[in-house]
Amino acid sequence: MRCVSQISEPLHVLYAPVQEDLRLVERVFDEEIAGDLPFIDDLCDTVRSYRGKMLRPGLLLLTARAAGELTDAHPTLAAVVELVHMATLVHDDVLDEADERRRQPTVNNISGNEAAVLLGDYLISHAFHLCSSLESQYASRRIGATTNTVCEGELLQNHYRGRLDLSEAQYFNIIGRKTAALTAVACELGAHFAGADEACVDAMRGYGLSAGIAFQIVDDVLDVTGDQATVGKTLGRDAGLGKLTLPTIHCLSVADADTASTLRAALQNDGPQSAEVIRECLSRTGSVDHALSVAREYVLGATFQLDTLPPSDAKASLSALAEFIIGRRF
Amino acid sequence: MRCVSQISEPLHVLYAPVQEDLRLVERVFDEEIAGDLPFIDDLCDTVRSYRGKMLRPGLLLLTARAAGELTDAHPTLAAVVELVHMATLVHDDVLDEADERRRQPTVNNISGNEAAVLLGDYLISHAFHLCSSLESQYASRRIGATTNTVCEGELLQNHYRGRLDLSEAQYFNIIGRKTAALTAVACELGAHFAGADEACVDAMRGYGLSAGIAFQIVDDVLDVTGDQATVGKTLGRDAGLGKLTLPTIHCLSVADADTASTLRAALQNDGPQSAEVIRECLSRTGSVDHALSVAREYVLGATFQLDTLPPSDAKASLSALAEFIIGRRF
Repeated sequence: MRCVSQISEPLHVLYAPVQEDLRLVERVFDEEIAGDLPFIDDLCDTVRSYRGKMLRPGLLLLTARAAGELTDAHPTLAAVVELVHMATLVHDDVLDEADERRRQPTVNNISGNEAAVLLGDYLISHAFHLCSSLESQYASRRIGATTNTVCEGELLQNHYRGRLDLSEAQYFNIIGRKTAALTAVACELGAHFAGADEACVDAMRGYGLSAGIAFQIVDDVLDVTGDQATVGKTLGRDAGLGKLTLPTIHCLSVADADTASTLRAALQNDGPQSAEVIRECLSRTGSVDHALSVAREYVLGATFQLDTLPPSDAKASLSALAEFIIGRRF
Repeated sequence: MRCVSQISEPLHVLYAPVQEDLRLVERVFDEEIAGDLPFIDDLCDTVRSYRGKMLRPGLLLLTARAAGELTDAHPTLAAVVELVHMATLVHDDVLDEADERRRQPTVNNISGNEAAVLLGDYLISHAFHLCSSLESQYASRRIGATTNTVCEGELLQNHYRGRLDLSEAQYFNIIGRKTAALTAVACELGAHFAGADEACVDAMRGYGLSAGIAFQIVDDVLDVTGDQATVGKTLGRDAGLGKLTLPTIHCLSVADADTASTLRAALQNDGPQSAEVIRECLSRTGSVDHALSVAREYVLGATFQLDTLPPSDAKASLSALAEFIIGRRF
């Protein structure tokens, strides 16, 4: 089983202010999904092996420490956002027909699509069940509203599959809902339950939103340019499944007619050769650099929100975490 | 859009004591899933067309009326259990590769498996979101615990697919979790929020549990013996997907060697001819009658739990509803 000590080096250092709390999050997570059926525990072991970056729990705990005091509610909340995230990963891998995640075979790969759909349901159910163990309904309401939005983002993405005329605005609408809504609520709940005032909670929510958008843009860039062995998951699926992302949208909008036509053909033609053609087109228009520069602007926007916080190790980690998002290769 | 007045005749009469409340449930349900994305509203229209029996909301409201006073929380709770149920239907249809439900094409049939998986997620998320609008966490905790159990039941069923040695005990373990847990919690919450005492809440939970088991046994019988035009959904999927149910389990355990061997072959061989062979085998061993007699015993057990209630129209409806479960042809 992957545990805190196995979190990759740069993140391990950034998480230092909340290292002990992250251990507790893992315990709460594991206790919540443990049941009386051994084969479900086996499926959950696969999910635990996905626990790589612990980004959302890390954000929630660091925000709490930076904005106020950690409470007993925080490890529970952090486990809830991680459970929601894991559920989306398991269902995403079914929809993307992905075979590998974090260098492990996916649940759908090992146990079939049926088990993966049901395991995703099991995880989302446990996320809400765990959240309902808190004293007030506050977090349940915010988490419920957020998962509504995440599902809308996923449905939007699926709705636009194969649409080569996807606009940047539509792309941001998708990633804002499917990815940034959850990082935003993680930071918001971290600050709210730490006793921060409304302005600070809003700022932390803004930090999480911008960081989430930057994170997804880089994720989409890595899907095109990443090294599968380093990233550790099936790559090239976006193009293969007709999903346009910021680099390809940019290239189609600025390329000359020949390049645009070559890219369009490659996007409609799944396969390793297509991946090479796509990279070549993006390189001609500097579209990967464009996407990374947009991500960098979101990182600046995220970091700006931290100005309201008093100096602390946790604040420094949040700042460095936003930078890590841009520099990461996995 | 299907509405209360379109509920089939025998149920319409049974629901008379809560007819107005059921209308309100539909309104709460519709308001909860309405969003700003028209294509999601279109998907939700398909789901609304599944709203046939409204069994779980009906049970929740009738139990409340029979055991105490209806409150503002009841229509919300009834919409929550219906949303959970709809989410399971949408995902079940993906797993069962079903084309038709309530005489309408399924979501997976119209919009593909991807959209259906995501729409199921959207519905379960809205169920929890709606539940979190209530003042206390009580219902969120009970609903969360129940959906955990429902997912376990679905995972168990999938785990045992293709296993021709499934025992009656394993079958009851599956249907108790996947179906009866939700009808049980519907009746429990109906009574609890109506102000009933603990003994009455326990009795109503017992009623819902037994009624749910009987309902699922009859559902499984209809999958083998039903007329697709009357039942209105794709039939014969259990055998086709290697799912043993009470009639086939009984037949395999009591049949002579020839019949058992014929049935085993037919269960491993999907197709319309197999359906005919299965019916022939079950008929030789009286296995459909056996299953229905077991269902009848559960109906008796359910009705027995109603003894604690004072006489009322709602109590009479609960009693008649248990009888309806056995007699239904759809």
